[in-house]
Amino acid sequence: MDTITIIGLIAGALTTIAYIPQAIKVWKTKETHDLSIVWLIILAVGELIWIVYGALINSLPVIATNIGSAFLALFILAYKAKYK
Amino acid sequence: MDTITIIGLIAGALTTIAYIPQAIKVWKTKETHDLSIVWLIILAVGELIWIVYGALINSLPVIATNIGSAFLALFILAYKAKYK
Repeated sequence: MDTITIIGLIAGALTTIAYIPQAIKVWKTKETHDLSIVWLIILAVGELIWIVYGALINSLPVIATNIGSAFLALFILAYKAKYK
Repeated sequence: MDTITIIGLIAGALTTIAYIPQAIKVWKTKETHDLSIVWLIILAVGELIWIVYGALINSLPVIATNIGSAFLALFILAYKAKYK
């Protein structure tokens, strides 16, 4: 694996990991009042399109990252929808 | 501009625009209790590394998106730091 891909994977790992504390916070507290549902929906759709773009340019970091991020965004969105 | 770049820019526009409602919500309400500061810091750092990766693979969507996203993440982070 080349250096550029590794840099991309580090970036991707961080921006994906970034959602984990938020997901845990929402999961534990069930408090989602300060989270914007519009934000979550646009984010999830955008990440799904990023997966397509990543596939088209053959970028493993873009694909892998956005699969992870989309999953977490949808997880938080599910809590937001349930607990408001 | 080729179709692949346009798809990437659409994805990037969505994942960047996604932060705008959150930024406006934080700006209006000053309520950031449910937002994780760990999330915001990791996200901002990750987005800065994405800009480097985007430059290395010559991907305009990756560069442009992460400049926008990093700016918004830092904006929200500033409010979080100020109002807790």
